[in-house]
This record gives sequence, C-alpha cells and structure tokens, in this order.
Amino acid sequence: MVFQQQLNFHTQPRSTMNITSEIQSIVAQSRIRIGTCHVFVQHTSASLMLCENADPDVRRDLETYMQHIVPDGDAMFLHQDEGPDDMSAHIRTILTNPELTMPVRDSQCDLGVWQGIYLWEHRMQQYKRKLIVTVLGE
Amino acid sequence: MVFQQQLNFHTQPRSTMNITSEIQSIVAQSRIRIGTCHVFVQHTSASLMLCENADPDVRRDLETYMQHIVPDGDAMFLHQDEGPDDMSAHIRTILTNPELTMPVRDSQCDLGVWQGIYLWEHRMQQYKRKLIVTVLGE
Amino acid sequence: MVFQQQLNFHTQPRSTMNITSEIQSIVAQSRIRIGTCHVFVQHTSASLMLCENADPDVRRDLETYMQHIVPDGDAMFLHQDEGPDDMSAHIRTILTNPELTMPVRDSQCDLGVWQGIYLWEHRMQQYKRKLIVTVLGE
Repeated sequence: MVFQQQLNFHTQPRSTMNITSEIQSIVAQSRIRIGTCHVFVQHTSASLMLCENADPDVRRDLETYMQHIVPDGDAMFLHQDEGPDDMSAHIRTILTNPELTMPVRDSQCDLGVWQGIYLWEHRMQQYKRKLIVTVLGE
Repeated sequence: MVFQQQLNFHTQPRSTMNITSEIQSIVAQSRIRIGTCHVFVQHTSASLMLCENADPDVRRDLETYMQHIVPDGDAMFLHQDEGPDDMSAHIRTILTNPELTMPVRDSQCDLGVWQGIYLWEHRMQQYKRKLIVTVLGE
Repeated sequence: MVFQQQLNFHTQPRSTMNITSEIQSIVAQSRIRIGTCHVFVQHTSASLMLCENADPDVRRDLETYMQHIVPDGDAMFLHQDEGPDDMSAHIRTILTNPELTMPVRDSQCDLGVWQGIYLWEHRMQQYKRKLIVTVLGE
C-alpha cells in the first residue's frame, strides 16, 4: 500500500519549525500499520532534521553552529544572486538534508522519546515550503 | 511485504561499531528478496554511516575530524546540561544522520565491497541504543 | 511492486554530474505510478545530492566550500594510502551522503523546479561508479 500527501508550511525567516504532529497525522490517515514514512522538501534552501525536542537551546545552538561553519556572504562564494544567505542556504540544506525516512509502527512514525521532526528554513525571509509525505507498507 | 525488527546495541563511549552482520542477518530473516532496508536510530546523539570497512584509521580520522569541526564544550553553545559532549553529540548526529536506506537484492543489503554499516556513538559514555530495521519489498 | 536497476557512470575527477534524466528514465520504465525512488552509490568516495540546477556557480561554490572545511592531505589524517584526497573523499561522502530517496508520482521523481540529482565524485581521478536504483510503490 502507498499513501502520499502534499503538505505546505509557511516558514519564518531562518528558523526551525516542529512539524511532528502534522507528519504523524498523515501517517494515521494512511491507515498503513507497518512500514516507512518518507518526507521530502521540494526546495534547495530548506531541510529536515530529527532533533532533540525538549530544550529550545539545542536548536538555537544548531543555528549558531551553522552560522559559524557556513558563513553568510563569504567572499569565497560566487553565487550571491539573492543576497548573502543564498549560497549558505544551499550548503546548509545539503549538509543537513532535505529528505528523511522514519519507520512506521501502529500507524505512527516510531520515534524515540526525544526525537522531533523539524523543518529548517535557511533563507532570511519567510517562504511557503512544499513537502511530499509518502507512507509505504501494509 | 514488510518485515520490521528492533535491534539493541550497547555502545562504547564515543566510538564506532560495525553492525553490518546484524543488519544483514535481519534482511536474510525477512525473506524479502528485492527491495530496500531502512535502519533508524531512536536517539539524537548517535548516528549511522556507510564507511570504508578495511582500514581502521579511516574511522579514527573521522573522529579526529569531527572533534575538529564540532568542538566539545565550545563557549558558543548554551545547551550544556549533560556536559561538554551534549550539544556536540546532537550536531554530529545531524551532520552524519541517524537513518539510512540501502537496496536489497537476493535477501541481502547490496553494499559495495568497501562499504560497512557503522553505528557511531557520539556521547562520551556507553549507552544502550535502540534501532528499528524495516525491510520493504517482495 | 519493486523495480530495481543498476546504473554505471564514468565520473570526471572531483566534479559533479547531473544524473536527473537517467534516474527519471528508470522511474518511467518501472511503470510504478506512486511510491518512492531510492538511489544508492556502492562506494565510499562519491555521493549524491539534490542541488540547485540553474546556476553552475552553486556547484562551484560547493566544491570551494568542501575544500575549505575538509582540507585535502591535512596532517591530522593518518589514512593517506591513496594520496591527499583519500581521507577527505571519505569525509565528504559521509557529510553529503551516498544515498537518497525521492517521492514518485505519475511515474516520475516528484522534484521541485530547482532540484537536480547530482553524483559528486570526491576523488581527484576519474572512476566508474556503480549505483543501484530501487523504485517501490504501485
């Protein structure tokens, strides 16, 4: 069995958004009991991550770290068409990945207690981001 | 067809563990001949990687490199609840990924000759880590 | 339904190669209408990425960035058997990932307008790289 659905999110500039409940809701609707759930971002400047879901400082530190290792507007980058966050957003997306697969059991993503699913907007403005969720199994 | 099984590993502090044979054994048990095998770590401080399986120096260098780009206990991190390896372990996990999919053929993960599946413990103590393996196919 | 096929590519030294049409062609052949497409590189020195497909400077900047954060032949690396690009190629592969899953709809990978699938050769010589493509769905 296959269940596929599109999800749209309006992101805030350079921020993370907990989308766990939206994903879990689609998996519940799929009525697929056991299998996998794949989430895919149709963009090259936003990504997904499984992150600690308790202390918001973890995501603040992740942002601090990313700015540290992928400096915005660095002189080494040629591609600056849309501003200093253009190339850095592409690199951040590739380092952290725009797609994610999770196991499904009892019609839920079988996450660990401290795992949340986050959509990470890497651009410095808000966007409408389109995600495709595909549940496979039986 | 779907086959899903839980695997528990007792890790050593900040180290890599070759788990290829345990994963291959589950795929063989599944009796699924062709499809995919997904492996998922239910934690935010341990990850999976496909790594060169011949020279142990490769994994030693990976550890050296990670300590170099993700410094433990760095002053830029606010989240230090569980010690200097707390936030760095979350970042290392996100950079290297806690989940992995491989092709299945003839009831085996169809890996390259030099590819091994490794579980990477990023914390500086030993843990019991829970993994979910899902084989999909026919 | 499962459809699996091997693809071989002859890469150029340390370069990226747009393989979108080759992957889309396999998905079309599979006649699977809806599901997922998984692409897997059977090597530890080449990886896959979804990258902006319009401006070639994006991939040039990615290469510049990788050389910046993963220095070739750095004295911290013990594993130098095959030259200064040996260990750096392993690290680059692990940071960017040798496997990728995409949603399938209407017998095509359902990519965003700006997303292309690229094979990234991290070694400084040309290689024959073997990929396994697995389409799952119905």
